[in-house]
Amino acid sequence: MQPVMTIDEVHRFLETDFPQIHTDGRVFTVTEIAPGRASMRLDPSKRHLRPGGTVSGPALFALADVTAYVAVLAHIGPVALAVTTNLNINFLRLPKPRSTTCACTILKLGKRLAVIEAAIFQEDRSELVAHATATYSIPPR
Amino acid sequence: MQPVMTIDEVHRFLETDFPQIHTDGRVFTVTEIAPGRASMRLDPSKRHLRPGGTVSGPALFALADVTAYVAVLAHIGPVALAVTTNLNINFLRLPKPRSTTCACTILKLGKRLAVIEAAIFQEDRSELVAHATATYSIPPR
Amino acid sequence: MQPVMTIDEVHRFLETDFPQIHTDGRVFTVTEIAPGRASMRLDPSKRHLRPGGTVSGPALFALADVTAYVAVLAHIGPVALAVTTNLNINFLRLPKPRSTTCACTILKLGKRLAVIEAAIFQEDRSELVAHATATYSIPPR
Amino acid sequence: MQPVMTIDEVHRFLETDFPQIHTDGRVFTVTEIAPGRASMRLDPSKRHLRPGGTVSGPALFALADVTAYVAVLAHIGPVALAVTTNLNINFLRLPKPRSTTCACTILKLGKRLAVIEAAIFQEDRSELVAHATATYSIPPR
Repeated sequence: MQPVMTIDEVHRFLETDFPQIHTDGRVFTVTEIAPGRASMRLDPSKRHLRPGGTVSGPALFALADVTAYVAVLAHIGPVALAVTTNLNINFLRLPKPRSTTCACTILKLGKRLAVIEAAIFQEDRSELVAHATATYSIPPR
Repeated sequence: MQPVMTIDEVHRFLETDFPQIHTDGRVFTVTEIAPGRASMRLDPSKRHLRPGGTVSGPALFALADVTAYVAVLAHIGPVALAVTTNLNINFLRLPKPRSTTCACTILKLGKRLAVIEAAIFQEDRSELVAHATATYSIPPR
Repeated sequence: MQPVMTIDEVHRFLETDFPQIHTDGRVFTVTEIAPGRASMRLDPSKRHLRPGGTVSGPALFALADVTAYVAVLAHIGPVALAVTTNLNINFLRLPKPRSTTCACTILKLGKRLAVIEAAIFQEDRSELVAHATATYSIPPR
Repeated sequence: MQPVMTIDEVHRFLETDFPQIHTDGRVFTVTEIAPGRASMRLDPSKRHLRPGGTVSGPALFALADVTAYVAVLAHIGPVALAVTTNLNINFLRLPKPRSTTCACTILKLGKRLAVIEAAIFQEDRSELVAHATATYSIPPR
């Protein structure tokens, strides 16, 4: 499973085809693309936080969703638009109000469906704040 | 299973204890509280939409999450803060850029866990745009 | 959404094409086929029970899986073999060692994917013992 | 996260307290217990297979469920009975009719809930046949 896009190419694609992820400023950054994998970082703005100082559930969902999308995109290229069909997320520990990383592993990249695992953590990767699995439907190419 | 809060009481509680759901204006409104049930409506702002004119996945997730939270809150009262531990969502049809309703049914309200089903639709309740099940952990009371 | 097979036709199809569900005797019975719906009953044998007298988790999973499969089969006909791609199940209450019903509702019947909700109960449908959602991949027809 | 039981101790506990997993002979074997992890192997009997020669979905579910249970048991000891509250499984590739391994990683071991990830594979761990996440409720100790 080899990626067909670089981090820069993915960033440019998101810029032109998916500008709404930058509505709140440059909070989402692709940090890694590797065979079968992709990672992104969320630098939360005030809107992603909750009183008491934690990153909100919807912000973690959005991070998992966009990172899994980027993992698929980087491996099939920008020809087709994959859409999320299922996302299951477990919230494990209250995140602190700081940068949060999502590391995605592609479990399956089929003709019609891709299944991705997402580990969401902050400083210590062995202490996940959330974990998700997502399925994307890939249109006929 | 009888609710212990009215729609007005829930709205006032959200206002003071959960103001961040109004960051984008009054887009979330509780529309029904009944035994074992609660519904909310999302009137999407520009930020909840995607190019091509559809309501975004994270917006649907946020709607399911807040409605399930409200369903639990309305039945146990504002004494304890339930937190989402798991949310599984299936995206079924592309929503149109318009008001979207989430109707939640409490499947179980235990001492420690509540499990809620969420049907998300627009005009026609028989054509769901998304469907979710969520688990909330209820702290000791 | 109209079914294209009757209960008898589904039973005959299972008999010839899926005989392994009868390995433990006639424990699975189709009890309803209706537009967008199908129900089955499990009459548990000793192997489906657990000490203390409850129906096992794997038995409830198998009941949800076969009923969702039958719901799809009854609506698309025996031409194509749908396969489960995802099943999410919440265990809500300990079942008693008795007949258990699974009532499935088809949430979406697309060209490539079907999504089904499954409510599993015993005597009282308002007290579910488990709840599941399942996705089936439908091969090109 | 340190295990408090050895493989032998887990096997003896299953023998006396959970004999029904041996109803079909000795098909489930614990193969690894390590900090935060446990693995089991299913040597499928005829009842776990499907025509065409594949391991059935319910057999893979049962393998994920028992392995996740063993992972929790090995880390909290046989004092309390954890029960599955949620299991989400993705079926990725058709398994061959042969030995199948489930490798579980504990993502969280809290006072009330444990969340476990399960990777199910045959010869090649990089080609999963299924992937699951499960939540167990841990009774007060």
